[in-house]
Amino acid sequence: MFGLHAVKAAIKNPNRKIHELWISQNAKPKIFTDCEIPNIPIFNIEKSKSLPISENKVHQGAILKVSPLKQPKDIDEIHKNKKPKLIVILDKVSDPQNVGNIIRSSLFFNCNAIINTLNGGSSENGSLVKAASGTFERVHYIQVTNIAQTIVKLQKQGYIIVGLDETSTEKISSFTKGNSDIAIVFGAEGKGIRRLTKEYCDMLLSIDGNHAFSSLNVSTAVGITLFNIQLNRFDGV
Amino acid sequence: MFGLHAVKAAIKNPNRKIHELWISQNAKPKIFTDCEIPNIPIFNIEKSKSLPISENKVHQGAILKVSPLKQPKDIDEIHKNKKPKLIVILDKVSDPQNVGNIIRSSLFFNCNAIINTLNGGSSENGSLVKAASGTFERVHYIQVTNIAQTIVKLQKQGYIIVGLDETSTEKISSFTKGNSDIAIVFGAEGKGIRRLTKEYCDMLLSIDGNHAFSSLNVSTAVGITLFNIQLNRFDGV
Repeated sequence: MFGLHAVKAAIKNPNRKIHELWISQNAKPKIFTDCEIPNIPIFNIEKSKSLPISENKVHQGAILKVSPLKQPKDIDEIHKNKKPKLIVILDKVSDPQNVGNIIRSSLFFNCNAIINTLNGGSSENGSLVKAASGTFERVHYIQVTNIAQTIVKLQKQGYIIVGLDETSTEKISSFTKGNSDIAIVFGAEGKGIRRLTKEYCDMLLSIDGNHAFSSLNVSTAVGITLFNIQLNRFDGV
Repeated sequence: MFGLHAVKAAIKNPNRKIHELWISQNAKPKIFTDCEIPNIPIFNIEKSKSLPISENKVHQGAILKVSPLKQPKDIDEIHKNKKPKLIVILDKVSDPQNVGNIIRSSLFFNCNAIINTLNGGSSENGSLVKAASGTFERVHYIQVTNIAQTIVKLQKQGYIIVGLDETSTEKISSFTKGNSDIAIVFGAEGKGIRRLTKEYCDMLLSIDGNHAFSSLNVSTAVGITLFNIQLNRFDGV
């Protein structure tokens, strides 16, 4: 993984296995302000140098070799210490930058978990963790083989399943079930939610706006929807 | 510029000067569904081939050589046919992907213009236009030398200037001036609005959420703020 926020959060996370740190002189004081220097091999690098270990992307002078985080295999393992619960379901969202950004927003709005498909959904990688800007260490990111089965399981637990669908005439501003346990389903950019997945949703809503000439990026749509649900909660955040 | 949506919108825009089209066999039917084949040199390319003309980025089989759009030099030139007016001001937002995404959301929420700094703000480029997903052809994107002067000018015209500042205890959910002409100011990722710019804002607000462990990407923050103002407008969209 790479990027200042992502690397710093990973070093501070006791559950994260880290192996090698590649760091520039400039990045050192930014990373080690409030965390110990870890007992792993550390190599000096130049901030501006493009390196294969960071997939040749902008690494901000900080690259960390890690093992993927151990995530729950299934939604049953999610902590149940907060009510009402809020889960984001991604139906084959593959772009790591969008998924990382969604994870960042999900933590900001106190979601309990983010679920994506194993097949077609982005797995943990450097771009995703960088876009999550340090938040990936703190969320449950669960990849499942079958979204429909996951939805049915959540419904049995009392969740309302809200699908975001830009063709729907029902708007999120009229949503009133804020105090329920809620799972919101989003599809991939352009494609939207798959037909079969849609059939399992309790309601389909679109975001109020000018659909004639524009649409919203999926990560922006997630942010707006989570904000709107928060406005609906009896006690806000 | 590159990307299916961006290239198609530019070909359909009579105000856009286009020079050369590079296109794959796959992309042709997607681009030319509802627009004429333009009278410019057209070259065949492979969809998967990385090309310097597209800055070696994912071009989806469609690359168009263009001149930059002619934009208003100043806010005075913005059309005044809609009330209340809504303007997004970016204080040195440099990341083209964020700016493109902000332009996309701004059109969705019927903004009249997006203003950025000439110095430090992203200018029109391939990454920006691609992230805007075809909407760049339809907005006023104005780069100014002095944001403070622009704010003063808008204030004289009756605009309320709202600065987004994550350290503010006032929340956007309590905003009630929805029916005014409004300009919202956002700063760059991490840095926020510059001190001097802040002093010119009529109020500073933050987005309701869990600031302890996370923040929002600037383009997500713009989307949420625009949505919230729309909820406040007397007649919605």
